[in-house]
Amino acid sequence: MASPPSHHATRRGPRGDSAAVKDSILDAARTVFSESGYQAATVKAIATRAGVDTKLVHYYYGTKAELFGVLAKEALQTIGLFEQLHAALGHKEKVGESYIRSALTAIESPETGTIFLGLLRSIGPHEESRRVFLDMLEKNMLTPLSAVQDAPLDFLRLNLVGTQLHGLIVSRYIIKFGPLATLSIDEVARLVGPTIDAYLTGDLNLPVEKEGQLLK
Amino acid sequence: MASPPSHHATRRGPRGDSAAVKDSILDAARTVFSESGYQAATVKAIATRAGVDTKLVHYYYGTKAELFGVLAKEALQTIGLFEQLHAALGHKEKVGESYIRSALTAIESPETGTIFLGLLRSIGPHEESRRVFLDMLEKNMLTPLSAVQDAPLDFLRLNLVGTQLHGLIVSRYIIKFGPLATLSIDEVARLVGPTIDAYLTGDLNLPVEKEGQLLK
Repeated sequence: MASPPSHHATRRGPRGDSAAVKDSILDAARTVFSESGYQAATVKAIATRAGVDTKLVHYYYGTKAELFGVLAKEALQTIGLFEQLHAALGHKEKVGESYIRSALTAIESPETGTIFLGLLRSIGPHEESRRVFLDMLEKNMLTPLSAVQDAPLDFLRLNLVGTQLHGLIVSRYIIKFGPLATLSIDEVARLVGPTIDAYLTGDLNLPVEKEGQLLK
Repeated sequence: MASPPSHHATRRGPRGDSAAVKDSILDAARTVFSESGYQAATVKAIATRAGVDTKLVHYYYGTKAELFGVLAKEALQTIGLFEQLHAALGHKEKVGESYIRSALTAIESPETGTIFLGLLRSIGPHEESRRVFLDMLEKNMLTPLSAVQDAPLDFLRLNLVGTQLHGLIVSRYIIKFGPLATLSIDEVARLVGPTIDAYLTGDLNLPVEKEGQLLK
């Protein structure tokens, strides 16, 4: 399978040899993680695929977990789940519908979505995968979102949004299950949007003091 | 780690040698699938752990996928996600809250939940895992649920419930993420229950004719 175009190359200015090598390592890593799953992927396999020495992979990107972290950060930024939620919150109405529409549109874009889904699918059943996934969410979604000044979002609400979004993405794109996998983006956004609204801005059925504790 | 007690033995009447062997194969398979993930698990490893010949595993349970199917069916039946939804629908109000409460209670029971979560975690990123998972849902949840006469449930509504339930289970029990992983079952049921209600019985934002097409 051909690697996706290296969309980040433009951010790096003129390419020297090291930029080309680094890109080829990232491309190889995306393929290996996506095909083998995180746990079974090895730095050796990534190096072999990139045609470089294993040491060079470690030199540029550190451990397997760190390399995965670089790819995950890039994929999440490219998909823009954070920016989209921020933008949708500015709409004041149909926030959830708008958010689901833009998130699914990004995920269905061949350039950005394939990479994101490949990484998501590569998260396996092991404790190490779990920690890598948590770290990815923490650094790339929650920390930026909780720092948004004009629309403070609490952690519990984001956590609830996350469960629905995660279940939807897995069902539609990974398991490809049932009617939800065949409906249009607009249809899915209309169905699931109200749930996102309820979680973001509805009354949560929790005692106020409990909710307060979870705002941090 | 000790294997969980063989709770299905009682259904089989007096145990002969073959019953004991079959149980030991199922126990071994649960452990191997749970520890290695579905894709990496082999019939050989299961046989070795059970102390039997590989041929005997095939003789009693067929292929790896078929063996997984037996375990998945048993785990889903033991957890009772189907029966619980059916029972909750009889309540007429707070159906979602009641369903989430009973589902999470079953999942948190050490006897039943550990096996269920082990199998769920073992579903990996590969196409074969995806098909095994689909098959498990189809046979054990959707077919029985769509056959319920007194409370006809359409596929799209179940699909939506499934996305929320799946995302919640993964977040709380597998990724163990955020406040949702630390709240009580009652608190989670109050938070997520209304979403389940909306999906089961609320107005779905779809054209009527489209909804009709998806009822099958």
